[in-house]
Amino acid sequence: MSEENPTADRVPEGDAGLFDAVVNLAKRRGFIFPSAEIYGGIRSTYDYGPLGALMLRNVRDAWWRTMVRHRDDVVPIEAAIITNPKVWEASGHLETFVDPLVDCRSCHERWRADQIEGTCPNCGSADLTEARPFNLMFKTFVGPLDDESAVAYLRPETAQGMFVNFLNVMTTMRRKPPFGIAQLGKGFRNEITPGNFVFRTREFEMMELEFFVPPADADRWFAYWCEERLAWFVGLGIPEHRLRFRQHAQEDLSHYSKATTDIEYLFPWGWGELEGIANRTDFDLKAHSALSGVRLEYFDQVTGERYTPHVIEPSAGATRAMMAFLLAAYDEDEIGGERRTVLRLHPRLAPFQAAVLPLSRKEPLAALAHQVLHRCQDALMCDYDDTQSIGRRYRRQDEIGTPFCVTIDFDSLTDEAVTIRERDSTGQTRVPIAHVVTELQDRIGS
Amino acid sequence: MSEENPTADRVPEGDAGLFDAVVNLAKRRGFIFPSAEIYGGIRSTYDYGPLGALMLRNVRDAWWRTMVRHRDDVVPIEAAIITNPKVWEASGHLETFVDPLVDCRSCHERWRADQIEGTCPNCGSADLTEARPFNLMFKTFVGPLDDESAVAYLRPETAQGMFVNFLNVMTTMRRKPPFGIAQLGKGFRNEITPGNFVFRTREFEMMELEFFVPPADADRWFAYWCEERLAWFVGLGIPEHRLRFRQHAQEDLSHYSKATTDIEYLFPWGWGELEGIANRTDFDLKAHSALSGVRLEYFDQVTGERYTPHVIEPSAGATRAMMAFLLAAYDEDEIGGERRTVLRLHPRLAPFQAAVLPLSRKEPLAALAHQVLHRCQDALMCDYDDTQSIGRRYRRQDEIGTPFCVTIDFDSLTDEAVTIRERDSTGQTRVPIAHVVTELQDRIGS
Repeated sequence: MSEENPTADRVPEGDAGLFDAVVNLAKRRGFIFPSAEIYGGIRSTYDYGPLGALMLRNVRDAWWRTMVRHRDDVVPIEAAIITNPKVWEASGHLETFVDPLVDCRSCHERWRADQIEGTCPNCGSADLTEARPFNLMFKTFVGPLDDESAVAYLRPETAQGMFVNFLNVMTTMRRKPPFGIAQLGKGFRNEITPGNFVFRTREFEMMELEFFVPPADADRWFAYWCEERLAWFVGLGIPEHRLRFRQHAQEDLSHYSKATTDIEYLFPWGWGELEGIANRTDFDLKAHSALSGVRLEYFDQVTGERYTPHVIEPSAGATRAMMAFLLAAYDEDEIGGERRTVLRLHPRLAPFQAAVLPLSRKEPLAALAHQVLHRCQDALMCDYDDTQSIGRRYRRQDEIGTPFCVTIDFDSLTDEAVTIRERDSTGQTRVPIAHVVTELQDRIGS
Repeated sequence: MSEENPTADRVPEGDAGLFDAVVNLAKRRGFIFPSAEIYGGIRSTYDYGPLGALMLRNVRDAWWRTMVRHRDDVVPIEAAIITNPKVWEASGHLETFVDPLVDCRSCHERWRADQIEGTCPNCGSADLTEARPFNLMFKTFVGPLDDESAVAYLRPETAQGMFVNFLNVMTTMRRKPPFGIAQLGKGFRNEITPGNFVFRTREFEMMELEFFVPPADADRWFAYWCEERLAWFVGLGIPEHRLRFRQHAQEDLSHYSKATTDIEYLFPWGWGELEGIANRTDFDLKAHSALSGVRLEYFDQVTGERYTPHVIEPSAGATRAMMAFLLAAYDEDEIGGERRTVLRLHPRLAPFQAAVLPLSRKEPLAALAHQVLHRCQDALMCDYDDTQSIGRRYRRQDEIGTPFCVTIDFDSLTDEAVTIRERDSTGQTRVPIAHVVTELQDRIGS
């Protein structure tokens, strides 16, 4: 994985068709809808349908499992979206989280100065104002007054929640660096040019870790987290040749960062960021210490050691990760001379882990099928489908990525067994009903 | 459970002390902090610390398990927080989601007209303006312009996301009434008088189901959901005598509701709503049909049957549910002549399901303890503690509600077994390491 990746900057042929196919499937099968579509939507805003809500939940859970549950050195928090505005003063967002905008004096449209070429793209006038900084934070008013004293912002990142709670967390959880604080949650940025489906949206979901380390260890932890996070995407089914690291050039770094490496995915339109790993140094803790007067430091009462930890931040987008998982999973192949569409999603990411399919909707098969369903529901997210031919039902489950179909046939009534059919190989195995759940759990992996 | 509940409106003695004890524990042990406390917070806004984030996640998961995973007739969605403002025009929120406010002409403070008595509580002046309606939705601007065309709102409820996506969901998931759409997510209301810790906050988390039924079946489903939802709280450990149903009087109903019954909990300050079950009739689907021109109806192509479903809505607050679970779980008792504080949380709601405690932090015990920890982490959220005496560590786990402690002692090195100690009874059982996880899972319940 490096900048020298031979496929870098070359989008494989056929990827334009792939993008359309996935967007179409996402809409048609209930993964992702334009938000409030009956009103014509609202630009670059999406609602997640049943399968999308299930899959997004699985993306989050996969992150949580790796970054929180399985780690001895990470604890989670959930901070408020609307908090004290001093947070954004200290973090630098009030001053520096801006895009330069110009107004057209002729037609009064507004544009990003760095994206137009001296004339208004709407009316062609060259009579434009000077560029002025436009803050990307959404602003609102808290309480009954609409004045400056009531202004607050929707958080543009979850990270500051970890910094302002650093002391509270370290103390109540009796931690010392190295340790991390993790958070899942929404962020909001008033992007002037959102786009590429759910890749860049104004409302988005972040999966962030702030990992606090002794200053001398920062470079080592930075390298560690780059490798860990890449492995996470690969472990969940993204092929390595569609991933790369991209180091930010010194002049492109954010105001708080000493070094940033992005994990990029080769989207159908080119390489795009899935996750950024930043060395934020002690910038944030020091800035909040200065403005609040509270010393956000580690202090060891026994040794007298005192320092401001440095922070390594792996920050991923949940919805763009979901989009990459969908794109990487999309496939078309041929089964028994018939074309099929199949989402080869990792079993833990698929909306349903299993679909329960009775060969007939009549009794006594339906009752037995529901028994199997309810048994599976204790442990897994399950679909149930008793319509149409079994072949069509398999295709439907293939198309939404369900890794296992559990088929109840007339023999099941006597041998108390069912057939488990695997999505990718279409291989079938007969399994006693009593063992179905453990068999599925074993195949999915804990 | 009825209005005639003998404890109605009588707060048990000692409950004031209970409230303080729980708020104090929540702060001290890292459940709930004032948001951005280093800046003095921001009124009635809270950040959830490590234990609070874990518990809140468990509350959500318990709801999801009952309302989504275990049901054949419910599918989830996740709609955007900021969507097309026409949604709030159709829903009636733009016009009717208001409080009456008055300004004091003397000191310029602003008050809720129905909460003051003719004079300003700040300066005592009776020179007040007429009451004017104040909309409780948070307003913001989307895109680069700060004008009326760019106004959008933070959703005050998640419900409208289900209504505007009704057709998309029904079609893509091939459903017919009765079926439900469930959603977990944040809502925002610019309350003039938030308070009572996390009971009423401006930013809050909802757990909502919109259940679409044939109109003739609405009353039956309304009764069904009242009972189901009450049973959910009881099943997770809230004593029945601290719960009651409260029917809204006809004149107190929201503009969309034909009938509403609240499930109330007896908080230390009196009865307060945990969840509202509303019969929203066809109000919302008809209102969105009228404004959008899209017919939000059920239509059966075979029989030609066509109707607008009625909607039964069980809508719960996640954070106030968490608060009720904490209050109901708080207890103090005596163990071996020593006072202890214990949170008798349902095992699935406790922040940690197990704590792994080696009797010594030295090798080879530490290595074995970590083996046990990593085994348990595959299935459960675990704490690890190797500090202080084992008695103090048990007390600490009792105080945060951990149902099981797994103690690794020197015998464990030879007999490959550990001691499981149960929180409520303090009873201890020796269990082979190979069976620890299944033993814990059995005791917790799937």
